[in-house]
Amino acid sequence: MTAPKLTAHLNETTTTRAWGCTTAGGDLEPLNIERRALRENDVRIAIEYSGICHSDIHTVRGDWGERKYPLVPGHEIIGRVEAVGAAVEKHRVGDRVGVGCFINSCGDCEACRAGEESYCANGAVLTYGSQDRYTDHEYSQGGYSQQIVVQESFVVSVPESLDPAAATPLLCAGITTYSPLKRWGAGPGKKVAIIGLGGLGHVAVKIAVAMGAEVTVFSHSTAKREDALRFGAHEHVSTADESFAATHRESFDLILNTVSVDLDIDAYLNLLRLDGALVLLGLPAKPLSAKTRTFTGRRRVLTGSLVGGIPETQEMLDFCAAHGVTAEIELIDAAEINDAYQRTVDSQVRYRFVIDATTF
Amino acid sequence: MTAPKLTAHLNETTTTRAWGCTTAGGDLEPLNIERRALRENDVRIAIEYSGICHSDIHTVRGDWGERKYPLVPGHEIIGRVEAVGAAVEKHRVGDRVGVGCFINSCGDCEACRAGEESYCANGAVLTYGSQDRYTDHEYSQGGYSQQIVVQESFVVSVPESLDPAAATPLLCAGITTYSPLKRWGAGPGKKVAIIGLGGLGHVAVKIAVAMGAEVTVFSHSTAKREDALRFGAHEHVSTADESFAATHRESFDLILNTVSVDLDIDAYLNLLRLDGALVLLGLPAKPLSAKTRTFTGRRRVLTGSLVGGIPETQEMLDFCAAHGVTAEIELIDAAEINDAYQRTVDSQVRYRFVIDATTF
Repeated sequence: MTAPKLTAHLNETTTTRAWGCTTAGGDLEPLNIERRALRENDVRIAIEYSGICHSDIHTVRGDWGERKYPLVPGHEIIGRVEAVGAAVEKHRVGDRVGVGCFINSCGDCEACRAGEESYCANGAVLTYGSQDRYTDHEYSQGGYSQQIVVQESFVVSVPESLDPAAATPLLCAGITTYSPLKRWGAGPGKKVAIIGLGGLGHVAVKIAVAMGAEVTVFSHSTAKREDALRFGAHEHVSTADESFAATHRESFDLILNTVSVDLDIDAYLNLLRLDGALVLLGLPAKPLSAKTRTFTGRRRVLTGSLVGGIPETQEMLDFCAAHGVTAEIELIDAAEINDAYQRTVDSQVRYRFVIDATTF
Repeated sequence: MTAPKLTAHLNETTTTRAWGCTTAGGDLEPLNIERRALRENDVRIAIEYSGICHSDIHTVRGDWGERKYPLVPGHEIIGRVEAVGAAVEKHRVGDRVGVGCFINSCGDCEACRAGEESYCANGAVLTYGSQDRYTDHEYSQGGYSQQIVVQESFVVSVPESLDPAAATPLLCAGITTYSPLKRWGAGPGKKVAIIGLGGLGHVAVKIAVAMGAEVTVFSHSTAKREDALRFGAHEHVSTADESFAATHRESFDLILNTVSVDLDIDAYLNLLRLDGALVLLGLPAKPLSAKTRTFTGRRRVLTGSLVGGIPETQEMLDFCAAHGVTAEIELIDAAEINDAYQRTVDSQVRYRFVIDATTF
């Protein structure tokens, strides 16, 4: 992997190739975008790989509202540092690094001071399509590009032992699942269920297994049963057969819901044991419904989670390196992005698309 | 307080005066009931005071299903030990003791071994109207009586410094609120909200204040505002004015819902800060509804809770003794029970009725 050459002096903006959309719902197409001149705490990254997250598709298609265009998505980014600002201490030129879902936050609130920048009380600046109200008020452009400039404190180190292409989805899917698995105690002696075996779900299985938990996958079809077991799951349960509600009642310490379809949450809560927790990661459209007694009788917990903060993202990458955990990916060229989007929507990806950044 | 005389030898059943109902929904009336001869681990308690819990009314009126009659309610019981079985070690004749919501459990499950008998996987035996499947298969009769026989491990010690009449509601309302307040970290620097200022709510306020938390009461009317402040609450907020949802957004670390009417749970969840928890104690009839984003964006927790186990009930009584916490009560004679039930349903009690057991 040869890093792209420096294309400008540190005190000048750079022009970089990217793929983005110019209207809501339009196909993605090649673009040139500007990256800012390095400030003293900035690093410029020569991107090697960029993952496709389902939320990229929702954003591009305008499902979550109108955005400023052109819009370059991408918040699963791995590359090498190619230039650093004068005051940068954490990263050096040549280091393999990563950028996830956010690139700035207020830095002052309780969450930020605790390293939980994704929960910034004043709002984290997302890696794309988000105005950086804390510095220059520019709109962020994401990882479907050959370069990105990010302040060092929002850049994590990627262990060299990780395959960089397959590690790329860890920057979103990895930390989104690692964070609640750790917070709610996945580990030896604990039974963990993962609802859905997609981009998030398959990484959740691998991480939970690496943490030492006994893992069950709940999935509508049986098509991915062999994969689930290969990833280390103890059991694959098809939810097409509704008897699972009875056979697995009060069985789990922790359930992660990684899907965004409307589920009978009350039925899944009843799969939890005393003090068990169901964590919502997907974003179904409809409000969920549950009975009060489902909570009181077993002291069950219903909660949700976003990606973790920067310290936990680093911890997750180090954990994945130590346990050999990466995503299952299909590596594609930029020209395949629009087809890949459709295949992602159709649940036809095994299990995450990653774009070779040399093809932007 | 003179303990009633022994009315029989240890190896004989005793007949005791009580008040109960003979049909679902019927008024309560005087009865004589039998208490079992003491087994080696049993204590017989001369009851001094017996509290009226709203759940007594639901049970008597058949709201929660048909029961075996006659039915003597009452699961807030304080009295003195008047006789002990041969193997009893924990309590001595003359000790002031209490009995709460349950009098037996399987003893074998994980919850029982952890002292969380109320969450017994095989089902705790409730203090009244519940069949003791672990011993004699008899149906339990509760505290509206002059005597009760309970095995010693389900009997707690009541500190002599507590006024016994005012302490009686602690056996249900106290432990029901103490348990989640402790579990979810009420204490100095934490902001706690209590929804409803009734039997549970007013004790919750006092306990949370004693734990060092800053307490806000959410109550539909303003009628109890002065009381709330007198109990130590920092603030009383009327929910009749819906602006509370905006003015108190993201303000609380912990919210206890003590009411059983249908609430907009999503609105109350939005009052929680990052990692805040809303604990359901009341039992509204309808399923609750909440948006997924309400959970994910702030990692909020929705959970529920029953009464705590025996060790925590003892801890709660010792805490209340140390901090001078008791309930606000109206002491009544047995002949006033039926009127008291109606006043409880009409929210006309300040704040818990306690029956003088000498009048049964």
